[in-house]
Amino acid sequence: MTKSIAILGASGYTGAELIRFIATHPDMHIQALAADRKAGMAMAEVFPQLRHLDLPILCKIHEIDFSQIDLCFCALPHATSQEVIRDLPRDLKIVDLSADFRLRDPAIYAQWYGHEHRALDIQDEAVYGLTEFYRDDIKATRVTAGTGCNAATGMYPLLPLLEAGVIDPEDIIINLATGVSGAGRSPKEAMLHAEVSEGVRAYNVAKHRHLAEFDQEFSKMAGRDVRVTFVPHLLPQNRGILATVYVRGDVDQIYNALTGRYSGEPFIFVLPPGEVPATQHVRGSNYCHIGVVPDRAGDRVMLFSALDNLSKGASSQAIQNANLMLGLEETAGLTLSPVFP
Amino acid sequence: MTKSIAILGASGYTGAELIRFIATHPDMHIQALAADRKAGMAMAEVFPQLRHLDLPILCKIHEIDFSQIDLCFCALPHATSQEVIRDLPRDLKIVDLSADFRLRDPAIYAQWYGHEHRALDIQDEAVYGLTEFYRDDIKATRVTAGTGCNAATGMYPLLPLLEAGVIDPEDIIINLATGVSGAGRSPKEAMLHAEVSEGVRAYNVAKHRHLAEFDQEFSKMAGRDVRVTFVPHLLPQNRGILATVYVRGDVDQIYNALTGRYSGEPFIFVLPPGEVPATQHVRGSNYCHIGVVPDRAGDRVMLFSALDNLSKGASSQAIQNANLMLGLEETAGLTLSPVFP
Amino acid sequence: MTKSIAILGASGYTGAELIRFIATHPDMHIQALAADRKAGMAMAEVFPQLRHLDLPILCKIHEIDFSQIDLCFCALPHATSQEVIRDLPRDLKIVDLSADFRLRDPAIYAQWYGHEHRALDIQDEAVYGLTEFYRDDIKATRVTAGTGCNAATGMYPLLPLLEAGVIDPEDIIINLATGVSGAGRSPKEAMLHAEVSEGVRAYNVAKHRHLAEFDQEFSKMAGRDVRVTFVPHLLPQNRGILATVYVRGDVDQIYNALTGRYSGEPFIFVLPPGEVPATQHVRGSNYCHIGVVPDRAGDRVMLFSALDNLSKGASSQAIQNANLMLGLEETAGLTLSPVFP
Amino acid sequence: MTKSIAILGASGYTGAELIRFIATHPDMHIQALAADRKAGMAMAEVFPQLRHLDLPILCKIHEIDFSQIDLCFCALPHATSQEVIRDLPRDLKIVDLSADFRLRDPAIYAQWYGHEHRALDIQDEAVYGLTEFYRDDIKATRVTAGTGCNAATGMYPLLPLLEAGVIDPEDIIINLATGVSGAGRSPKEAMLHAEVSEGVRAYNVAKHRHLAEFDQEFSKMAGRDVRVTFVPHLLPQNRGILATVYVRGDVDQIYNALTGRYSGEPFIFVLPPGEVPATQHVRGSNYCHIGVVPDRAGDRVMLFSALDNLSKGASSQAIQNANLMLGLEETAGLTLSPVFP
Repeated sequence: MTKSIAILGASGYTGAELIRFIATHPDMHIQALAADRKAGMAMAEVFPQLRHLDLPILCKIHEIDFSQIDLCFCALPHATSQEVIRDLPRDLKIVDLSADFRLRDPAIYAQWYGHEHRALDIQDEAVYGLTEFYRDDIKATRVTAGTGCNAATGMYPLLPLLEAGVIDPEDIIINLATGVSGAGRSPKEAMLHAEVSEGVRAYNVAKHRHLAEFDQEFSKMAGRDVRVTFVPHLLPQNRGILATVYVRGDVDQIYNALTGRYSGEPFIFVLPPGEVPATQHVRGSNYCHIGVVPDRAGDRVMLFSALDNLSKGASSQAIQNANLMLGLEETAGLTLSPVFP
Repeated sequence: MTKSIAILGASGYTGAELIRFIATHPDMHIQALAADRKAGMAMAEVFPQLRHLDLPILCKIHEIDFSQIDLCFCALPHATSQEVIRDLPRDLKIVDLSADFRLRDPAIYAQWYGHEHRALDIQDEAVYGLTEFYRDDIKATRVTAGTGCNAATGMYPLLPLLEAGVIDPEDIIINLATGVSGAGRSPKEAMLHAEVSEGVRAYNVAKHRHLAEFDQEFSKMAGRDVRVTFVPHLLPQNRGILATVYVRGDVDQIYNALTGRYSGEPFIFVLPPGEVPATQHVRGSNYCHIGVVPDRAGDRVMLFSALDNLSKGASSQAIQNANLMLGLEETAGLTLSPVFP
Repeated sequence: MTKSIAILGASGYTGAELIRFIATHPDMHIQALAADRKAGMAMAEVFPQLRHLDLPILCKIHEIDFSQIDLCFCALPHATSQEVIRDLPRDLKIVDLSADFRLRDPAIYAQWYGHEHRALDIQDEAVYGLTEFYRDDIKATRVTAGTGCNAATGMYPLLPLLEAGVIDPEDIIINLATGVSGAGRSPKEAMLHAEVSEGVRAYNVAKHRHLAEFDQEFSKMAGRDVRVTFVPHLLPQNRGILATVYVRGDVDQIYNALTGRYSGEPFIFVLPPGEVPATQHVRGSNYCHIGVVPDRAGDRVMLFSALDNLSKGASSQAIQNANLMLGLEETAGLTLSPVFP
Repeated sequence: MTKSIAILGASGYTGAELIRFIATHPDMHIQALAADRKAGMAMAEVFPQLRHLDLPILCKIHEIDFSQIDLCFCALPHATSQEVIRDLPRDLKIVDLSADFRLRDPAIYAQWYGHEHRALDIQDEAVYGLTEFYRDDIKATRVTAGTGCNAATGMYPLLPLLEAGVIDPEDIIINLATGVSGAGRSPKEAMLHAEVSEGVRAYNVAKHRHLAEFDQEFSKMAGRDVRVTFVPHLLPQNRGILATVYVRGDVDQIYNALTGRYSGEPFIFVLPPGEVPATQHVRGSNYCHIGVVPDRAGDRVMLFSALDNLSKGASSQAIQNANLMLGLEETAGLTLSPVFP
């Protein structure tokens, strides 16, 4: 049976990406689209690429009749999301795409985000949305917290290795490069075409908030404190994240741990040994490509992980989780191929 | 019933784009993929973005058992295509994406392409693949000739106006800008990132071969000789064509002719008066957006037409035609939304 | 003798571009840099690419001792510029890069810019800064008004033809495409990398304010009212403008009028017949390349003009005019070659 | 006195970049330009951005009268360069931009480049062209071997640290990202705009030939074998290399070693603590920006180094070395500011 969907924060990039995937989803129907500052506008005015779709007019959140909604995606800014979700019906299924419910420890949340959490009870029931590692919990939960896009990219190659105990947990570097769309649609000087194009730079070195997610998930998986080094860079491209991860271990054990862990996964592909992924080859899709290459000598091994920050890193991940929460086929609506070139 | 599809020339960009759309097409199955120089390779080696698909190994054309094929897409280079198609079974349905069967007059073909046509009988039965204007013929034909990507972009805003007689046929300028993917995947200095990026230039001014298609279709529609001015430009982007068309006429008559002609069309959208399309808003889709803006005075009117050269300008257009030829729903598999940003 | 220079509005792109050229200018020295909101900052904090230069700290305009300044460049926003210049010493030489002093008719100014001009006496003495056409006036003036970047690109190919009377002044179309840096550094959604990259669109169709400059200069040159059609487009690149101009006339007369007019000009190059310019081949330079190609039949001729909007379209043009006003060699500091690729 | 310069291999990107810098060099004059396959052509036909320069017609190498040449730049492909230079007059000063004379050990050369060196005596006299570390040798030598562009980017932040002994030489990772122009102008599928744009990927992981330069220079400086981990990536931009280097040591010692070593250098800038460089801020210049940021805990420190691969990584580095070899001011002609945006 077709499920009725609401999207809060529909005027941002992740909102639009949700709509793009749901538009061809066999079992979902968009019932309501909220975007407070653009309420009253047609979606085609906000995102002309969606002109061909028959979509509801943008409304304010309080105008939605949530009794008609099977699941609600929240694509709102950080901090806003927790205040909105706190006031939604407590039996409504929610997939949140913000950072608000990712961290389980309220003190850690306060430390990284600079204020006390304002919906701690919901934080308590939220499941971390890395589907391949929380599948059963997600099926059973009411609230899923979508992962950070960088966090997901770094976790896919690393979690199985920490799980299998085949790498040194004290020597992990995640060198990551991301496209600009992760920064959202609100105007910022640093995201102007003239500032980004034809250039690359690091940002938030060793202090990016997704470090908190790495700490939480890596430590949990390893059963001990794990503190990775993390350096994100901004790329002159719109979509795509590439994580280049440096670890120490045996390359065959590493490769086998990854292929073993992901052999049944529909969206995670471990490339043949020695091959490396490219972000343009996962663009616009829910797929993640992982490569493994040993260093020329010694026990260092390089892992490469590529996904689309707006899709597998945010909106199509959210739909994958929603499919589980709604009892739908997990892959429903998500098998669109990457758009290349 | 699912139709069995073969693609000849599967290792080029239009080949990959055909596969991308067919992969989620409800009624088509890829039975054979030919790419002579890459025969024996897996598609994932040629186009890693298709790694998740279960596709046949690339083969040579003569290895295909065409008795098992319901329809064959030919995505081969110009001139090669006619020689290959000449030798295919004469009852095989074919959608050709090359320029080989677009021009109905053999003398005109020889003039623009520099050699005698080598499959004139097939040229004779081929229907021009501009779906919205040859729908009934396409349903009935065995061979459809896909349009030039630039040609389609220029024709969508102009054909209804020539049909309605609301513009001066002697004063038409098509100023067009296209992404680089139309030039294909074979290495050329002029298509290197370092040559194209951060720059724009005109090319083939007043002598582009798509002029022959304009002459043929515009003259046929107008019932008199029409010779437009046509200046294409190369953009620093991969996908997308924008035609800026200058005509003379009454803006209301023009707008009404367009909205009247396209009101029932599923893929052609005439924007509200005064709005202009953007190529990024049709990227990767079968949609075409058309805008109309009058000059500040006088009877000049500007038309704007945007489509994706690899999709509506080539591969998804080909599938739309194949749907008609196979008795399928015309829109089947083609409603994927544009990927933006 | 080295001239002391002040730049007002040094924190924008044209300000930085002025500094880049002046840094290797043999006869200019930067004495003061003003940027009101960033006063107190070092230039390297605002524009890290200027870190190697020994530049004054950014100050407020009123902090500058103008008695020490030989010439002042104003790179301030439109409307602001006239208010600032009105209050500067009346014997100070000024090159203004805003739109404030380009239009000679106050009524026309008010019509296009939406308010009465607030420094009409200075407007009265200002000379239009298209160097090659106002050289003697610029040498003698106290105030030069830099041209619009689009306006300059359109005027270079057209003014000599109107002067020579070799084209029909009633049938001129300027189809223009520009990079994003012309929109400046203040954050706007439409200029985000994610909005601009991989796409092209028209903007301000038939109502761009540079039309007022076209009307003024073309009419003056032709000795009659000339009203061109003008459609600008936004390109996915940072720098560069390409004007594709459609006129009617004899191609040989047109070509000869251009080569004759520009044969002695150091910065304007008319390409060999049939060749077309590319914006990447003038990037970062004071050069303008012009091409001429006839249509395949009839009397229509296409003109192509390429320049860098921040350089020849703004800052290096301003320096060229300043050279004249200061009695320096006109080409001093301006012969930097384009940066390609 | 003005020095007469010849450039062999003038039709490639590094050749054009040499011309760009020499064109405004106060003490150099281009006497001869060779490009065997394009001999007889004007430079403006090969590189239209150089149209404004009065340059010699391209010739064949053997047509040059080397008795008139003070210094010859060789911008030829690897392997070709050694054969050409072997046959040049033995008293001719040469700056070679290829990889042919960078490695001092013939066995190492043969191992990395797959063939015996064919001009071993010249290899023996060649000095490695990292100016800031071989300044005196370069002043005295007849032949300088320009560094690899990636090699230079990695060496600038690391050599002072190995020299000062403030980092662990057994735990160094160079994660590097480069623009496409380093791959040259000959057409390759992997360098097409459609393949590169909007994507990033690693290449030649742990086997890039610049590793041989790292091994040679780092080991020499450290006085022991040093084998770094090196992973280069290809960026969707034309120019610029960013090296992100992971080391272990004390951040203050590291920062002081860098600022101490480079305090007198005109082209190497160590940014304020915690700041990171961006490739767009050195574009088209001979400047290199270096940043230092400590990890959030532990003894890991991240170094960031940005330069333009065609300029400081190749052609302007070559001119800096030529200045020394010719007894000119080292900075002559090299102080052009970066072009941003």
